[in-house]
Amino acid sequence: MQNYQILIEYEGTKFVGWQKQKNGKSVQEVVQNILKKILKEKILVLGSGRTDAGVHAVEQSANFYSKNLIKDKIKFLRSANFFLFKYNISILDIKKKPRQFSARFSAKLRTYKYVIINREATLSLKKKRAWHIKKKLDIMRMIKGAKLLKGTKDFSTFRASSCSSNTPIKTLKEVKIKKTKDRLEIVFQSKSFLQQQVRSMVGCLKYLAEGKWSLKKFKHVLISKKRESCAPPAPAEGLYLWKVTY
Amino acid sequence: MQNYQILIEYEGTKFVGWQKQKNGKSVQEVVQNILKKILKEKILVLGSGRTDAGVHAVEQSANFYSKNLIKDKIKFLRSANFFLFKYNISILDIKKKPRQFSARFSAKLRTYKYVIINREATLSLKKKRAWHIKKKLDIMRMIKGAKLLKGTKDFSTFRASSCSSNTPIKTLKEVKIKKTKDRLEIVFQSKSFLQQQVRSMVGCLKYLAEGKWSLKKFKHVLISKKRESCAPPAPAEGLYLWKVTY
Repeated sequence: MQNYQILIEYEGTKFVGWQKQKNGKSVQEVVQNILKKILKEKILVLGSGRTDAGVHAVEQSANFYSKNLIKDKIKFLRSANFFLFKYNISILDIKKKPRQFSARFSAKLRTYKYVIINREATLSLKKKRAWHIKKKLDIMRMIKGAKLLKGTKDFSTFRASSCSSNTPIKTLKEVKIKKTKDRLEIVFQSKSFLQQQVRSMVGCLKYLAEGKWSLKKFKHVLISKKRESCAPPAPAEGLYLWKVTY
Repeated sequence: MQNYQILIEYEGTKFVGWQKQKNGKSVQEVVQNILKKILKEKILVLGSGRTDAGVHAVEQSANFYSKNLIKDKIKFLRSANFFLFKYNISILDIKKKPRQFSARFSAKLRTYKYVIINREATLSLKKKRAWHIKKKLDIMRMIKGAKLLKGTKDFSTFRASSCSSNTPIKTLKEVKIKKTKDRLEIVFQSKSFLQQQVRSMVGCLKYLAEGKWSLKKFKHVLISKKRESCAPPAPAEGLYLWKVTY
């Protein structure tokens, strides 16, 4: 059995998320079916982690074991992407990995990017690819809030009730905010995240930046560790799984 | 009669182009119909220029004359964008202009951006938003070619047979190439362009960058002023009307 890592881009709009589910089409299931067709064996594709319905990936990482050796990488990519094209999924690369490599457990750093378009006009080119916020956002306030999120903390406030992580304590290594005209990008880096942590943090940063919350209130929400005090999570369509680092 | 300028973003995939045509839906026609509905008068929207079927706009500019004064700008934008949303068209802004202002004839500079994704894997997130080129492109060669295009020249090589411009001589003020990972952006600036000029130049730059043409051959094609010597024009889906400056 050979262990392979694949890097995957997807446009998440029409999926129930990464993880295979009974109630709709998942990225994992589509990729597995195509690999089964190509490699002529049953394939289990293990992702670096789940992404919610509607969340996109610039570079999701996954691994699978195959009895058949893939000799021609380009031929494999062409064949897989030929079938994946209509689903808006692309396999960017495939790499041989040692037996013990796990896309999920070997990951050292996960990078997510959240994209906001802050303007009056509805979205056309970025429809379903960003969060459209009309109310003017104060970036300086958002940067102050972002600073408070960095570091090792109990992130229970930002944790979905269905989260299966064994601890709410995570180390947020980076929260970086970049503004270009009406576009706002927030980059989050951590070894791992709680379920809905990024979207929940973005929801709270938005409340702060639009002046609904003071910085004091934001801080209070963070240290309260109470899910009830969290702002509504930001919509999935603005979120991109950007990179998984090993 | 009040003259108004509007700035318009659109996702060009489903349109026959900017200009009203008999054979399908145009951006101009959709915008005119919505403005007629809102302003309760017949409106003629005059664009800064045509864009081909499938070409996108980050900021197309147009003007129209109205008997009704638009008193509340935000209300106008909300109402127009409410109706335009499903067409993937957004009116970004509206400004009062003097009677003699023409979105087309007053323009001092037009900026187009062409986006290429240079990688093996098919496109998912950028599907219909960029030109997918698999063959490895040599950016240094492309930069050399771009230099040759700059300046005041007879651009007949890059001119569609249906072009109605009264001269093939144009001044290309800027051709700038930017590469970020597998993404290539080429920015073109000129007071005006011939029909299909940008797509034709990109087609030739691609032939140069993939090694199909030498720099000598590229130069020869440019000075030949013969349409037959031009490479196939780059597809519309990678082209963005970026900005019109007055």
